[in-house]
Amino acid sequence: MPDTTGSRFSGLTPLLAPRSVAVLGASSDPTRISGRPIAYMKSQDFKGALYPINPNRAEVQGLKAYPSIAELPEVPDVAIVAVPAEVAAPAVVEMAKKGVKAVVMFTAGFAEMDEAGEAAQHKMVAEARQYGMRILGPNCLGVFDARRAYYATFSSSFDSGWPVLGRIGIASQSGAYGTHLYTLARNRRIGASLCVMTGNEGDVTVGECIGWLAENPEVDVIAVYAEGIREAPGMIAALEAARAAKKPIVLQKVGRSELGSKAAKSHTASIAGDDAVTEAVMREFGVFRARNSEEMLDIAHTATRKIYPVRNTLGVITVSGGAGVLISDVAESVGLAMPEMPVEAQKKLRELVPFCAPRNPVDATAQVSNDVTLVKTFTESMVKDGGYSSVLGFFSMSASSRRWPAMREQLNMVKDAYPDRLYTLSVIVPPEGRDQLEADGWVVHEDPTRAVVAIDAMGRFGAAFAAPPPAPAPAVPAVTLPSATPTEAEAKTLLGAAGIASAPEAACATAEEAVAAAKRFGFPVVMKILSPDILHKSEIGGVLLDVADEAAVRGGHALLLQRAKAAAPKARIEGVLVAKQLKGGVECILGIHRDPVFGPVAMFGLGGIFVEVLKDVVFRRCPFGADVAEEMIRSIKGAPLLLGARGRKPADVKALAEMLARLSAFAVAAGPRLASIDLNPVFAMPAGEGAFAVDAVIEVDPPQA
Amino acid sequence: MPDTTGSRFSGLTPLLAPRSVAVLGASSDPTRISGRPIAYMKSQDFKGALYPINPNRAEVQGLKAYPSIAELPEVPDVAIVAVPAEVAAPAVVEMAKKGVKAVVMFTAGFAEMDEAGEAAQHKMVAEARQYGMRILGPNCLGVFDARRAYYATFSSSFDSGWPVLGRIGIASQSGAYGTHLYTLARNRRIGASLCVMTGNEGDVTVGECIGWLAENPEVDVIAVYAEGIREAPGMIAALEAARAAKKPIVLQKVGRSELGSKAAKSHTASIAGDDAVTEAVMREFGVFRARNSEEMLDIAHTATRKIYPVRNTLGVITVSGGAGVLISDVAESVGLAMPEMPVEAQKKLRELVPFCAPRNPVDATAQVSNDVTLVKTFTESMVKDGGYSSVLGFFSMSASSRRWPAMREQLNMVKDAYPDRLYTLSVIVPPEGRDQLEADGWVVHEDPTRAVVAIDAMGRFGAAFAAPPPAPAPAVPAVTLPSATPTEAEAKTLLGAAGIASAPEAACATAEEAVAAAKRFGFPVVMKILSPDILHKSEIGGVLLDVADEAAVRGGHALLLQRAKAAAPKARIEGVLVAKQLKGGVECILGIHRDPVFGPVAMFGLGGIFVEVLKDVVFRRCPFGADVAEEMIRSIKGAPLLLGARGRKPADVKALAEMLARLSAFAVAAGPRLASIDLNPVFAMPAGEGAFAVDAVIEVDPPQA
Repeated sequence: MPDTTGSRFSGLTPLLAPRSVAVLGASSDPTRISGRPIAYMKSQDFKGALYPINPNRAEVQGLKAYPSIAELPEVPDVAIVAVPAEVAAPAVVEMAKKGVKAVVMFTAGFAEMDEAGEAAQHKMVAEARQYGMRILGPNCLGVFDARRAYYATFSSSFDSGWPVLGRIGIASQSGAYGTHLYTLARNRRIGASLCVMTGNEGDVTVGECIGWLAENPEVDVIAVYAEGIREAPGMIAALEAARAAKKPIVLQKVGRSELGSKAAKSHTASIAGDDAVTEAVMREFGVFRARNSEEMLDIAHTATRKIYPVRNTLGVITVSGGAGVLISDVAESVGLAMPEMPVEAQKKLRELVPFCAPRNPVDATAQVSNDVTLVKTFTESMVKDGGYSSVLGFFSMSASSRRWPAMREQLNMVKDAYPDRLYTLSVIVPPEGRDQLEADGWVVHEDPTRAVVAIDAMGRFGAAFAAPPPAPAPAVPAVTLPSATPTEAEAKTLLGAAGIASAPEAACATAEEAVAAAKRFGFPVVMKILSPDILHKSEIGGVLLDVADEAAVRGGHALLLQRAKAAAPKARIEGVLVAKQLKGGVECILGIHRDPVFGPVAMFGLGGIFVEVLKDVVFRRCPFGADVAEEMIRSIKGAPLLLGARGRKPADVKALAEMLARLSAFAVAAGPRLASIDLNPVFAMPAGEGAFAVDAVIEVDPPQA
Repeated sequence: MPDTTGSRFSGLTPLLAPRSVAVLGASSDPTRISGRPIAYMKSQDFKGALYPINPNRAEVQGLKAYPSIAELPEVPDVAIVAVPAEVAAPAVVEMAKKGVKAVVMFTAGFAEMDEAGEAAQHKMVAEARQYGMRILGPNCLGVFDARRAYYATFSSSFDSGWPVLGRIGIASQSGAYGTHLYTLARNRRIGASLCVMTGNEGDVTVGECIGWLAENPEVDVIAVYAEGIREAPGMIAALEAARAAKKPIVLQKVGRSELGSKAAKSHTASIAGDDAVTEAVMREFGVFRARNSEEMLDIAHTATRKIYPVRNTLGVITVSGGAGVLISDVAESVGLAMPEMPVEAQKKLRELVPFCAPRNPVDATAQVSNDVTLVKTFTESMVKDGGYSSVLGFFSMSASSRRWPAMREQLNMVKDAYPDRLYTLSVIVPPEGRDQLEADGWVVHEDPTRAVVAIDAMGRFGAAFAAPPPAPAPAVPAVTLPSATPTEAEAKTLLGAAGIASAPEAACATAEEAVAAAKRFGFPVVMKILSPDILHKSEIGGVLLDVADEAAVRGGHALLLQRAKAAAPKARIEGVLVAKQLKGGVECILGIHRDPVFGPVAMFGLGGIFVEVLKDVVFRRCPFGADVAEEMIRSIKGAPLLLGARGRKPADVKALAEMLARLSAFAVAAGPRLASIDLNPVFAMPAGEGAFAVDAVIEVDPPQA
């Protein structure tokens, strides 16, 4: 570990890479929870100081034991605590007072159990923090770093083998899953030296651990398993640090389903945030969300090659046509480009092997049996002439055949001559054969589908790392929210000051005023009841469309007042709103809601059935600029409707994006009392004609007493 | 093999399970293509007669060689042909004449190469068929059945090991992929004894092979890799046979993508049918379409337990909370139900282990270390009280721990007491441990995600096997198509005779007639130009909506005639169509197109953007009854719009389904000259008010000369 003093996450170094470790209540039995860490560190030769604390013994597992922390020759960086909850909490606080910098707390019986446990956990963490101590857990499986033989964990997984050293770091909330993942990695001979499991996250969060891994020069790739994100600033800083260091993050986030969220709460006391928001934050930072642990390892392992093409293209080389179709299918489904070989290059290859398929997938055919140098010639043409950033060789069981050593040599010549490409193989080989190819620099996958998914992920990382910094959010004036939920007209005035346009409209106290406004705007107009006490006007028949002439305005005015009185006799009626009726626009919804973890989050979708039935919406953390807003708009499934599908006139996407960006800035400027905003509908008019909110609801929380 | 004489696919028995095998041009070199089959069959002790044919040798690989087929002591069931294309084709026809029942043809250089090769292939197949001979290939990797040591293949995969015997049969168009799949199965110790690879499919198709496997009592599960379906009757009969025999089919069909389709054509000369149609046919028969070869093997292997729950429910048992959330997420995403344990049972479990999670996932906690019988108690309660049809034990590396043998014993007690459930484990164990558990009757998956997908598939098979036969298609009168494409009015009359209702309308030659019709229907009306030469009326402004009164009808009549004349001066104008304008219905599209393989195929979707932008449509082979039609309607994403989403009035889905079923029957009755039908839009009116086609286009092919 280099000196990370002063960096955002260096506070975790005593916890995750300590020079000295004490074990509270250390057991002589190497199979007991409080005996295992010592057994592991002794067996693997931990280079730091290791202090068993046990007042009843002079020696534990061959090490000098101490009666208490106070008797140690030094204040240890970290103490491991496995004693029961009743005694653990006071002991932790006591150690904090003595200057112990960190604690790994296996002890259960806190927030995951009941409210009393949650209160005890809060109290302990708050007290320890006063002295600058950090706590991993409680109710956690701990942490290990095989590279420094640091094993502050009681995981029994080492019974079946020690970790394979490598440059993947794992951060997991769940201990069971963290171990599962690391064991899968080990069995696949994938190097993951370091694994930290955060359990209840009373103090240290998975976000902070990601940040520390991002700053750790021994880690290139970060694999994360999370059930819910507990705090935003640590997580955001961590994601920023990882992106800045060009370290890919592969995430498995569970609790997507209602069922899953329920299970999450019952087992590690996690407050799973809204999954759609987490998804949006991860997308913002180029985190790859894996569907399962195999995909996670495939991608993390492939990423350790550190080839992240900015514009990823795949060239497939094979000696038998079979899997080309399959690979093309998968590439198209994930969106990985497989451009054809240049025509000239195809011609040259066809001159060499008349019945070859030179397009891409490139099939050199069984002719390689007669002339193995064709493997090099064909592959080199792909890299050089085709210019593919990623190469996938589908050789299946050919890689177990007698001619494979010669083919491998040919392949390696190309790889060594063009080291800036990503080289992968889909082969069926015994473990030793795989190790050999991996040592050559190939990434080996058995299944071609999984290979394609992993290759595609490298391009996604590359694009995220290379993306220019997004434009700043638009500047909006300071916002002063009223003390109670504003009327529609007030809401529109507030938003108007931030540059968010509404359809021309006027609040009219009398029928005469309404007629005058309608004449000013031109017919037809929309009329709505105006009352701070009636939020959802259409539910009481408080909205009239297509009001076509003066007489209709008068009749409408009377009708609205009558309906409002009937439906809400106590509502304060301020009159009616008369607005120009917009025609020919595309109906959209723009909204803000406050996420308990990430604060204000913007939503964009098309109106009506698109939101209601298809849930075709996109979210983004506020604030953001118009470039991000336009990306959001273009990302929904119904986007072609705005972009001019099937001969439609394109809508004013620029104006819509500007409105969405301004809304995001407004939401931040409005401060924490802003609960939500609904602009529904917004009409995106034809290009050049702007976008206008037709209805606006702002909900505010009451001021704090 | 039992006697399958007379069954639909028994004709393939001489090819796939022969009693005698001749090898044309047999080589003494066991590594050469024409030497390998003999080497394999000798090594594995093929029990039938094996005849090398080689005029230049008295003996081949220790077997007596014969100068020609004619000199053999008997006419062999099958002959293997690896000689060059020029000599192969005449030799095959010659053998057909001599009574050889089948040929496995490795020889390449036919349809996959060029048009001349395709012609030669057609000629050879046609001639051989006259004598009742069946041909596998050409350009195929052949077939093997390890159970009877029959190896009519030159696959080099056996260099690294022989197949594991078992009850999965593989049918693959691609030889490379078939071998890849079988090798993966072997490496995972999954039993797949039989694999047939059809190559060019000049004669024998993958469909027929499926049928033969369905009739084969040594096969329980069929794994298929296909690039395109070449003929419908064989495939349909095969799917029907497999469903009747309750044999699950897992299919990997490639060529979904445009890229994939192109690659498919270039490599095995496959005419990939429309993928959406294939998908519909597979769904019709309960075939599971796997995303990749691992999923295919997971599911095929799980299916060999032959437990196919009709209403599948999953109970998850674990001793550490971690993966519960993950499993719940996956189950929800695939639609597998995980009901909670009954309250009483939860109470009982909580009395045993106060801090257990008894809901489902059920977490017996680390308490099982102290009392291993808890494993049985908890699991038994799930099976008995919870009534789950499928059990997944997530024990990860616990299964490599010292206490595992005791846990396994507990688990087996439950399994043996309730043998009608599907028992699966997600564990990390060495291969021997896995074999042991598989022998116990557990299906072992390393990854819990993959386990859930496979468990879910068993329920899908169960539901398909248990589904009642669908209702018959409605009876429709005979259809006589006109010799040329009919006008809209003619089309509606034809459809009307089949019970497909249009909005009330009248063909009107004069403005007077149009006015009279409009008055009869009530205003507003729709007016359209009526001409057999103008198919797409709206493109020339030939449709007027909202025609509100008598004067507008007169003006509209003149306007339509004028526009038609301007746009298509030579078109025959028969007048205008006046129709009642329907309001308040949901716009749908019903259509028919003729698939080159499967014949008439019906499409259903919602109108406008749903079809154009979201491609939210469903297909089905014609004909079908109203029950299937209603299933189709309910299956699209936008279905809530018809079913009454968000307080909308539900549409008349019954009438819409009846219309769709009648359209499917009409399409069949119309015969092969029917090219396509478009009913666009159809208005599904509110429940009880029917469904009406507003426009109808029928395209017909000209009568054969």
